[in-house]
Formats: sequence, structure tokens, C-alpha cells
Amino acid sequence: MIDVQNLADDRDVPLNKVGVKGVRYPVTVLDRAAGVQHTVGVVDLYADLPRHFKGTHMSRFIEAFQRHRKDLSMPRFLEMLEEIRTDLEADAAFGVLSFPYFVERPAPASGLESAMSYECRYEGEVREGRRDFFVSVAVPVQTVCPCSKAISERGAHNQRGVVKIEVKLGPFFWIEELISIAEAAASSPVFSLLKRDDEKLVTERAYDNPKFVEDLVRDVYIGIRSLDRFPWFSVEAENFESIHNHSAFAYAEYGSRQGASR
Amino acid sequence: MIDVQNLADDRDVPLNKVGVKGVRYPVTVLDRAAGVQHTVGVVDLYADLPRHFKGTHMSRFIEAFQRHRKDLSMPRFLEMLEEIRTDLEADAAFGVLSFPYFVERPAPASGLESAMSYECRYEGEVREGRRDFFVSVAVPVQTVCPCSKAISERGAHNQRGVVKIEVKLGPFFWIEELISIAEAAASSPVFSLLKRDDEKLVTERAYDNPKFVEDLVRDVYIGIRSLDRFPWFSVEAENFESIHNHSAFAYAEYGSRQGASR
Amino acid sequence: MIDVQNLADDRDVPLNKVGVKGVRYPVTVLDRAAGVQHTVGVVDLYADLPRHFKGTHMSRFIEAFQRHRKDLSMPRFLEMLEEIRTDLEADAAFGVLSFPYFVERPAPASGLESAMSYECRYEGEVREGRRDFFVSVAVPVQTVCPCSKAISERGAHNQRGVVKIEVKLGPFFWIEELISIAEAAASSPVFSLLKRDDEKLVTERAYDNPKFVEDLVRDVYIGIRSLDRFPWFSVEAENFESIHNHSAFAYAEYGSRQGASR
Amino acid sequence: MIDVQNLADDRDVPLNKVGVKGVRYPVTVLDRAAGVQHTVGVVDLYADLPRHFKGTHMSRFIEAFQRHRKDLSMPRFLEMLEEIRTDLEADAAFGVLSFPYFVERPAPASGLESAMSYECRYEGEVREGRRDFFVSVAVPVQTVCPCSKAISERGAHNQRGVVKIEVKLGPFFWIEELISIAEAAASSPVFSLLKRDDEKLVTERAYDNPKFVEDLVRDVYIGIRSLDRFPWFSVEAENFESIHNHSAFAYAEYGSRQGASR
Repeated sequence: MIDVQNLADDRDVPLNKVGVKGVRYPVTVLDRAAGVQHTVGVVDLYADLPRHFKGTHMSRFIEAFQRHRKDLSMPRFLEMLEEIRTDLEADAAFGVLSFPYFVERPAPASGLESAMSYECRYEGEVREGRRDFFVSVAVPVQTVCPCSKAISERGAHNQRGVVKIEVKLGPFFWIEELISIAEAAASSPVFSLLKRDDEKLVTERAYDNPKFVEDLVRDVYIGIRSLDRFPWFSVEAENFESIHNHSAFAYAEYGSRQGASR
Repeated sequence: MIDVQNLADDRDVPLNKVGVKGVRYPVTVLDRAAGVQHTVGVVDLYADLPRHFKGTHMSRFIEAFQRHRKDLSMPRFLEMLEEIRTDLEADAAFGVLSFPYFVERPAPASGLESAMSYECRYEGEVREGRRDFFVSVAVPVQTVCPCSKAISERGAHNQRGVVKIEVKLGPFFWIEELISIAEAAASSPVFSLLKRDDEKLVTERAYDNPKFVEDLVRDVYIGIRSLDRFPWFSVEAENFESIHNHSAFAYAEYGSRQGASR
Repeated sequence: MIDVQNLADDRDVPLNKVGVKGVRYPVTVLDRAAGVQHTVGVVDLYADLPRHFKGTHMSRFIEAFQRHRKDLSMPRFLEMLEEIRTDLEADAAFGVLSFPYFVERPAPASGLESAMSYECRYEGEVREGRRDFFVSVAVPVQTVCPCSKAISERGAHNQRGVVKIEVKLGPFFWIEELISIAEAAASSPVFSLLKRDDEKLVTERAYDNPKFVEDLVRDVYIGIRSLDRFPWFSVEAENFESIHNHSAFAYAEYGSRQGASR
Repeated sequence: MIDVQNLADDRDVPLNKVGVKGVRYPVTVLDRAAGVQHTVGVVDLYADLPRHFKGTHMSRFIEAFQRHRKDLSMPRFLEMLEEIRTDLEADAAFGVLSFPYFVERPAPASGLESAMSYECRYEGEVREGRRDFFVSVAVPVQTVCPCSKAISERGAHNQRGVVKIEVKLGPFFWIEELISIAEAAASSPVFSLLKRDDEKLVTERAYDNPKFVEDLVRDVYIGIRSLDRFPWFSVEAENFESIHNHSAFAYAEYGSRQGASR
């Protein structure tokens, strides 16, 4: 049977990335509390395509993922990309894995446990002699507006927001560490389950601790920088303003990203 | 050229709806302030298919929409459906048109004008001797939690929410009337543009006017019922809770819907 | 601490549904091949609210779900709703759970295994002396256009489509049974992993088996009806047409739905 | 009234971007055929925030947009950003505007006119002495798989795909020029309205002209490069594979992007 993909190509245009996108699969990742966590991921896997090949072999990306999906720790994710690179005789392989990560959390007063979900993303790139790995996590939080509090005789508008942190590794770390920094920088964390005594505590604590979207980014930035562990990171915050039908947004980054271009 | 759709079908299964879905087009609708408004719609158009036909003629839906899209007042929308019904020799024709509708609004203290967008939806069904028409509008609002205010020594959690009203016509009305009822029932409307004196007013007014999602639905329900104009309507409210990562939701309906089944 | 929700309400407007919406959680469901399956669900839980209560107690929905999420077989889902109903002294409780369900499948020629994901949805309603339960599943498929094949000298446009089946129970059944009916009615099932010999087989089989969106709905309808197991069901199909930027759509239903109003 | 945003900040963390995100508004853009086109945009507007300011003034972004939205040609978009930069005493201002752009197109055989929509995006960045402007457009197309055609005795799987082109300006150009290059590189363009003689022509032409996602990117790349007009551009293609439930993807870029970092 003819292998059309392997035919020669004379257009002289190398491709930065070719592969599969949007593959949904059950995956298993590391979990600090429970050892492993079962969740559901959406994965994109690419390799570069040299100028002289007509096409890549799409099925091989799925085969590699199929082999590794039951142990997707950060180092194993890079090993999977290395296998793809070797298998396709490519210079570079790229992968993005997005999944909700769940953490059981106690309510602040009652102590009742419930699960919170945080959108996580691994992004890796491997080349000869070089591996880059990026992890991002999106942390929903509550923010009370400092301006609204300062100018109003009573109350203050507040809303849900989301802090998105992306870091370039660096040594191993737990996603929970980034979540803690984001939640500590907000007016309050958010919870799946709050009884009335929890709600009172959350309301008052948030009111006492107003934060602009700018404050949130700066305080998370300082928190991550003080870990002194990541050569590059970025912090963004988006507030789903309760007085507008649009968001307030802020973004800052530290160091030089390089690698794993979006 | 063979017309496969017109072939006989012996499976004896009539279809409730067949047609086109997700067609995006520039459309023109009526605007109370400006006469007409240019916006962008997504349209679904269907007819029933009797048991003895193999298929419908999909291109005729697009041709009918193409003829009418520059004047999509509510009565003209039903006329378009009637044309489709006749053209396809169907018993019933159905249409759904979703579009953002824009209204210029003054900020409450400064009076500065800006545009707010409201998601609207027409849904129509025409049969021999019967026409049903439903309009819905989604109104973003702010809500302050009465429980949080009552149990906390200071502050109160609040958030953006959305009130969705659907009505069955009835005589002609302006979408702006439903928007006003929804905004009056909330802790505060939301705005695209607020200066600091506006923000102070909005904050204090919302704090003085706390509303559960249940209150919102009930007050909108009473407001619409008092118009005494719609044989059926429904009201739902969803609060994007600032202390949770999920929503609070409430729903009520009046009368009997019938027609234009979803 | 005051319980604002328990205050009397004199507006005389009962609410059909009040509760929580969009709660994302890891869940465990039954799996025909593996016994249980770990996946991720998004849940909405509601109860009705009698006219004389100001508000519901939102945290109790989460507490009930927290207790049951590790065993969400269909009967247990209804038991959870019954607990909510009792706990909130409501007449009715409602629940919707959406989750991807994964099935390992062999490629048609090579036999290589890979996982396919199917969006599933449970919808339940419990009242005194009555329980209604609906299950839906969305099955991605391939369809070749019979008209395009008949009128063209070579080739035929084809595309991915999705068949959505919803059934009212009825005795226990496996989701896999509905998936099989949908895939058998299409020009071809779709797969996560296909080698070249698989691709040849899929291409030729689909070309030999052209189906309109209307055919798909009719053949699935006949397949489910012949099971003689569900008092109500609906079938819809949407083709993401490869020659258009919109979809072709068809819908049919059997019996009378009743219960668990959307 | 206190201006909290203007307070000094001693955290010593400058922010790359602060502003408003997700503002939906009616906008007017240039249209080659009709002079101007009314459409609906979603806009994000940011400026950098020096280390010594606590916050930005969010309302000023909306005021600037409000002034310019009725004439959003590419040069006027950059002038708006320059006004924002000056008004906020910032070093840089950034803007992203996304909108559907509509073009009336004749069907290939019948000549019947209908509108196609293409998602467009402006992205601008202005600094002292420097302006960068990027335009992207997403063009839906049809692709027939060359491998499937070559190995199968009859038929070939095909599907809708989307080609996304982003260019850095460069002299003025019409979006229609990029759309033409993308459509010419595909197996076939897609259309809103096709009669049977059009469908026959589209089917046969596409079958005679099979293209991998890799071919699509390479041929669009060569087409844009030959214009010799843009210092940087990228081309990506995503095929919504009709035999899989995921996409095939390819990406290539030319030159060095710089400016308007995402």
C-alpha cells in the first residue's frame, strides 16, 4: 500500500508543527494527597516536519499517548515527547495536556471537606540536548474592589476572578504550591461547600482584604519570585466584574520564556 | 440530474425537524431608539419531513433567510417561516435566531453614555392556522447576597448574574421593556462605563438592595405578570457566585408553553 | 445567627427550581467492560421552592452530591435526588449530570485498541410516588452524502457528525448499546487510532454506505424502537457539513416525554 | 473622592498589561465591496502600568473605544491605542479586536449569492516611536485526504477545516486577499448556499484536488510569501477529521514576529 506521507516534497517549506489536536482521554496524574489522581485530559501532540517529507504519520502520536497516559507525571510527559521525536525522526516534538485537577479542601470555619477543581496545563518541547517544560494552573478566587470600598459609605463590589500562573521548570514542584500562593494573594479563596459560619468568615475576611486585579498579579508575582525556583513565569488575573459585563485584566512576567512557543 | 432527496422512503418514520443549523449572518432588527439596528445573528431553520420523503432541500432554507435578513422584525420572521413551510410543502416550519442586541445607556451619576449588549433569541413555529412566537433576552445584572449581608459585620458578597426571560407573544412589545424589568429587580444593573461617582452610587445602591437568586426570579416574575400581556413566560436567574466556583440558579414559569418545542 | 433563607415570603410566587449549577467534580460511574470508570462530571442540582419560603439552602445540594459521587449508577443518582428532596422538605428534586464516558475500541482492520469519548448526561426528577430518569449520549460518526455521491462522477463529500440519543427509562441498560445503534446507522463509526489498512477499510465502507442526516435519524430511531424498552426517546443528528460552514440537522421523537422538564 | 488607583505602590513590580477584556460592541470596519461593514466586535484594551502606580483607570479604555468604534480601519485602530497610551501616561498600549467579517460570494455553478463569515482579529501595540499591527483571519475550507484517496478503491474521506493566517503589517491590504489565498490552497472553498449543480462541481473539484493539512499550510505559505508584503506571518490549518473525533493540525511561520506579544 502506498505511503503518501513518505513521498518527497519539493516545495521547500519546513513546518514548525504537525500533529493531532483535541484528543480527549482519561489520564492519571500525580496527586500530593492521594498518590495518583484519575482525571480527563485533552491533548495536542506535534512534531516538526522537515522540508523534504510530504506528511507526518498522525497515528503514531496517538499510539505514544496510549502507552503513557496512565502515568503522566511531568518527567514522563517529556519522555513521551522524546519517544515521539525519535519515532518520527523529527528535530522537535511538542505536547500540550489540559486537565482539571481536583483538591479536597476544608471550609474555613466548619472544616467540612469538598473538592475544588483547577484547570491545569502541561506544555513540553523536546529537541536534541534540550527539554523545556511549562506548567500552568488557573485558580478561581474572590476579589473585593479597593476603590469601591474606599469611596462608598457601605459595601464594596466584589466578584469571582481567576488567577492563571504559568511557570517554566525548574525542579519538581506540586501544583498545590502555586494554588496556595494565588489563594493567599486574593481577597478570599473560593469553595465548593460553605455553611453559614463559613460564609460569614469569608465575607468579612474578603471585605478586610480588598484587592485590585493589579494587586493580585503583583502579590502572586512576589510570592512565586520568592520561591526562587523558576527561570521564567507569568501571572495573569481576570476579574469577572460584578458592576460591568466585561472583565478587568492584568498580566506580568518574570525572566525570559524561550522554548515551547505558543 | 437525479434528485435523491425526492426519492420515496419506505421506513415509515416522519421527522419532527430537518434543516440547517448554525448559519451566521449579518442581520437587521428593529431598535426602539434608532429605528433599525445592525447586528450579527446565528440562525437555525427547520421544517418537518413527512414519512414518504427521503430528504429535505437544505438550500431552500438559506435562500429564504437570504431574502429576509435585512428586515427581521418579529412579524417578518414568522412570514419567512411561512414561506419556508409553503416552499417545502411541509406541515410545520421552525426557526431560531440568536443575536446580541445593543442599547445605549447613561451611567447613573455622570450620565456618560455607553452600549450594553443583551443576548436575544427569536423562536418561531408556523403551522396551518397557527403561529407561535417566543422571544428571550438575557440581562446581566449585579446581585448582593442578603444572607451574607445579614450575618456579616461588614461587607457582603456580590457578583454578576444573568436574568433570562422568555415570553410567548402576545402583542408587539420592545425588548427594552423586559430589560428594564430585569434590571429593576436586581441589586443593580451593570454598565460598560462607570466613573468613580457612578461606582460609589452603584456600590451603595446594590448594598442597600440585597437579592437572592430566588428574589430576582420572583420580582421579575411579578413584573412581567403585571404587564398582563403574555400567555406564557419563564424567568431564570443564574448568579456566578463570588464565593464559589459554581452558580446559584432559580427558575419559574407562568402559564402553559405549548408550541415551538425545544 | 439569623437564617435569612428560612424567613417567610409573602410574594406568593412558588419557584419550579432552585439550586446549584455547574459544579465540576470527579465522579465514578458503572462501566460494562471494567466494572467502574473514573471520569469528571458537571452537575446541576435543584429542588422546587414553595411559595412561603424566602430561599433554599444551597450547601445541602453539595453535601448530598459529595456523599454519592463515588457511586453514580443510575439508581443511586435517583436515591441522591430523593435525599435532597427529603432534606429540603421539597415536593420535587431535579438533577443533571454531564460527563465524558470512555470506551476502548479496536480499529476495524488492525485491531489496535484506543479510547473513544462520548458525552453522556443523566437527568432525573423525583416526586412523591414518582421517579423519572433520562439518559442521553452523543456519538460522533462519519456520514457520506448520498446526493453528492449520486450526482458526482467521482468522490462524495463526507464529514464528522454527531448523533444524540436521549431515552427515558425503562429497565437498566448499558450506554454501549445506544452507542452501537448510532454507529451502525452511520456511514462509518469514527476512531481515535487508525493505521493505513484501517483507513482504507473505513473510507471504502463509508463510501458504500452513504447516509443523509435524515437517514441517520430514521435508522437510529428504528434501532431503538425495536429494543421495545423505552417509553420515550428522541434522536437528533447534526452533520458538520464539509461543503458548508454550517450544519445539517434532523430530529425525531417517540412517545410522550413528560417529567424532568428542561 | 479618593483616587485609590493613583496611590503610590512600593512593591516595585511593573505590570506588562492592565486593562479591560471581553467588551462586546457594535463596530464598523472597512469593506472592499460595500465601503463599510457593520459587525459586532469583542475588544480587549490594555496599557502597561509603571511600578510606582497602584492601579490603572479602567473607564478610560472604554471611553477611547466609544469614540472610535464607528471607524475601525486599521490605521484608526492604532490611533485609538496611541490616545490610550497618552491618556494613561503609559509606555505602551495594546488592543485586540475580534469580529466576524462577511463577504458575499457566488456559488461556483449557479452563481447564486450568499454571505460567508470569517473570524478576523486585529492586534496592535504602540510605544514611543514604534507601532506594530497584526491581522488574522480564519477561513473555513474543505479538504480531501490524499492518503485516503490513494489507498482506497473508491471515495476518500474529507472534512471541513479552518486555515488561520496571521500577518504583521506592512502596507495596507484587504482581508479578502488572504481569504482568496487560503481558499485557493484548499481542496475546495466552502459556501453558505449551494444548489445541486454547485454541489456536483464542488465534490468533483475537491476529489481531484486532495490536500493534507500539511499541503494546505505549505501552499498558503508560498502564496503569502510571494506577495512579498509582510515582514512576518504565520499559517495554521486544522482539519476536523471525518474519520476521527479529533483534529489534524499543522503550523508554519515566516520571519520574526516581535511586538504585540500574546
